[in-house]
Amino acid sequence: MKPRLIDIARRADVSEATVSRVLNARPGVNEATRSAVLEAARALGRELPAAVAVREALVGVLVPDVENPVFAQWAERIEAELFQRGAAMLLAVRPRSLEREREILERFARVGAQGIIVVSGHHAQETADVSHYRELSALGMPLALVNGVRADIDAAFVSTDDARAVAVAVAHLRELGHVRLGLAMGDERTWPVREKVHAFERLAHRGAAPPVAYTDFTYAGGYQAAVELVGRGCTAILCGSDVMAAGALEGVRGLGLEVPRDVSVVGYDDSQWAAMTSPPLTSVRQRVPQMARAVVRAVLEGGEGSRRPRRTEAVMAPELIVRGSTAAAPALDVFPAPTRAGAADTMVG
Amino acid sequence: MKPRLIDIARRADVSEATVSRVLNARPGVNEATRSAVLEAARALGRELPAAVAVREALVGVLVPDVENPVFAQWAERIEAELFQRGAAMLLAVRPRSLEREREILERFARVGAQGIIVVSGHHAQETADVSHYRELSALGMPLALVNGVRADIDAAFVSTDDARAVAVAVAHLRELGHVRLGLAMGDERTWPVREKVHAFERLAHRGAAPPVAYTDFTYAGGYQAAVELVGRGCTAILCGSDVMAAGALEGVRGLGLEVPRDVSVVGYDDSQWAAMTSPPLTSVRQRVPQMARAVVRAVLEGGEGSRRPRRTEAVMAPELIVRGSTAAAPALDVFPAPTRAGAADTMVG
Repeated sequence: MKPRLIDIARRADVSEATVSRVLNARPGVNEATRSAVLEAARALGRELPAAVAVREALVGVLVPDVENPVFAQWAERIEAELFQRGAAMLLAVRPRSLEREREILERFARVGAQGIIVVSGHHAQETADVSHYRELSALGMPLALVNGVRADIDAAFVSTDDARAVAVAVAHLRELGHVRLGLAMGDERTWPVREKVHAFERLAHRGAAPPVAYTDFTYAGGYQAAVELVGRGCTAILCGSDVMAAGALEGVRGLGLEVPRDVSVVGYDDSQWAAMTSPPLTSVRQRVPQMARAVVRAVLEGGEGSRRPRRTEAVMAPELIVRGSTAAAPALDVFPAPTRAGAADTMVG
Repeated sequence: MKPRLIDIARRADVSEATVSRVLNARPGVNEATRSAVLEAARALGRELPAAVAVREALVGVLVPDVENPVFAQWAERIEAELFQRGAAMLLAVRPRSLEREREILERFARVGAQGIIVVSGHHAQETADVSHYRELSALGMPLALVNGVRADIDAAFVSTDDARAVAVAVAHLRELGHVRLGLAMGDERTWPVREKVHAFERLAHRGAAPPVAYTDFTYAGGYQAAVELVGRGCTAILCGSDVMAAGALEGVRGLGLEVPRDVSVVGYDDSQWAAMTSPPLTSVRQRVPQMARAVVRAVLEGGEGSRRPRRTEAVMAPELIVRGSTAAAPALDVFPAPTRAGAADTMVG
């Protein structure tokens, strides 16, 4: 006699709904539970379709591009975590448009993804349409979204603490005597940019807004931002990515100045080649390995026992890696005259 | 009445074997043929299991790592080609050991990959055990293997023409007056390294072997190789990767010399940040977009009409991208004294 769901459920100590999910190869059951259900089903003599018995978890991962090495690192670390847990990674890159992003996520679901991780997707934009995330979540698909938080999506959110990232870089530069700091950023509609700009503004007090150059997260964008910010009197530049920072190094050189003698430059991401620029970059390192572990755990355990993913939020503190692109401020700033100190107060002092 | 395979085969103008493959969701049928078969089956009233009807192609892709940006570029371009054809990419990185590589390829097959692409895997080593490739191939799995050729695997091989890569770099440096060229390479057991070294040796004639430094394909490896090769009197260094070349730039600086005034450096891959080093790298560019298209086409169309993949080999010519890391040889070499010209002949002259 074919065992009933309830028999299997009792033996495996789970709900009937969970047994049904496992036997129908639906997402949202973690590997341990799945194994227990399959073992109970086998022990009770239930025949299992081959597809269910041998199925390993597939997880869809979407990253913006791999030209920025930090996104390649994200993909690599997430894959390593998935592999360790017996799961395989479906990777897609360059969502470009919202439509393309929707198409990718739907394709992940269609080919059998049991969870989806999105790094810096449209969930990172304040006003983007995110109905495709909501639809997947409503279907019970575990979602983990990196570096961007939206109140209207049920997902596990894992982000770097952007305020802290700015704070550690600013503290380092202040210790070196810099008072006129500039911020070089990309698209201001995105969560990490807004968070960093707000933090930067909070660190400035009394008076004029601190200098922020909005270009884009590229080498050319960094070059252009550096020229603008040095033109506005900055002796130190915080960049939104290492790629931007590499461009900023060249922008400073293009002005006939030297890094770090005349201008200090701080990168962001501490990507693998931050140590390879000349001079090597001081950079703020996101804790990609820990964050990758957190998102993988979230999607593989996300929907257990319920069709509804649980909404969670985690922020992780970054750390500053000091190398050769930052040094003491030029003499004028190290020993500021009273009038200069006054000017500093209106910037970030 | 349930239509027979032969009816569907006639309507779709394919063999019965192909119809059987499609209806059983087995690999080795290209998307156009698959669609035609499914359409014919539907038109004749054959019910299709949901898994077959909605199934989209999954292709497994294995790259060595993503720290070297050229491998990130490979993954990105292959994914773009797959996406365009309605397929999704399973990505795994860092095979490390042969055992791990075997495990990854088997997992690809288990989760339903309909083809597998390996970039610079163990197929690139002359003597590595490649039985796992042969087993998959024997099961009808289409394989496409990049930058490495083994006579004992049935697969589509697509490689950059390494001899040509060395030739264009050497020609460029000779035009600039360099006669003492050195080669900086990684693991000499791999196909691309052997091909490049052989080409480099062919370009040297009469007498002593040209200077080759075997370190590894890293920044530190490039640094060390540059110190060694400059110590052996080289005024120009061909590197096996851009990462090595970045290290070589710093190695030359560490000796108190300048690139390109005293020593010219040529990279390999022309990865995205070759233009971001200081000075920007002259580099040999592999035709990754074209090669990615070729391997994707090979795996998606590979096994059609037969369980046995067809063995094919293609080599693609690279191109030299000239930037700021190469310049005229130092005066001594531009106007060589007779004794120096004699020495040049024994090197690469």
